[in-house]
Amino acid sequence: MMSVSDVTWSQSEQAIARKAFDMAYEREIEALLQQVQQRAGAIAQLDDLWQLHDFLSTQRHEIDGKYDYRYSVLIFVFARLIKEGWLQVDELEGLDTEKLTKMKLMSRM
Amino acid sequence: MMSVSDVTWSQSEQAIARKAFDMAYEREIEALLQQVQQRAGAIAQLDDLWQLHDFLSTQRHEIDGKYDYRYSVLIFVFARLIKEGWLQVDELEGLDTEKLTKMKLMSRM
Repeated sequence: MMSVSDVTWSQSEQAIARKAFDMAYEREIEALLQQVQQRAGAIAQLDDLWQLHDFLSTQRHEIDGKYDYRYSVLIFVFARLIKEGWLQVDELEGLDTEKLTKMKLMSRM
Repeated sequence: MMSVSDVTWSQSEQAIARKAFDMAYEREIEALLQQVQQRAGAIAQLDDLWQLHDFLSTQRHEIDGKYDYRYSVLIFVFARLIKEGWLQVDELEGLDTEKLTKMKLMSRM
């Protein structure tokens, strides 16, 4: 049995993965930008501002860590993106069945 | 000769100082809130967002440090606020001449 980190990605799988990865990233960033503009528009006092600052600190840290495009971790990354709703399983169609099965399982954990 | 930190503040001076301090604080916060709303409205991409985050980190640190209402440091605080334009010297009228002279001198350094 291969462990997740030993999994190889064929060229066509790499193309599918890259596209899905970028798509999820764009979606999450777009949603974040909108959320920040809404929050910024509703700032009335200093507390709101520091709450926005805290929010940005967390988001920055999370996004920096989450979008890690290394094939050794990509199955975990995709599982998380599916779980969080930034990616649909059918957008990964074309990956081999074993990878898809693992991602689906992990995304439900 | 008294050093700055030994200076005593009469009750009427304390009232003047408190009012001026709060006024400067409100002005700076108000300006900051407006600036952040403008910047937030102009956010188009992730880089802009992280630049806003960096800006807020700096501002938070500065404001936390700057508005220090201890009588031992208040002359320095006021000198800085005057230098930065958050306070006018004539808004400190009623403080004794020595304090005012020191603040004016320091605010020009």
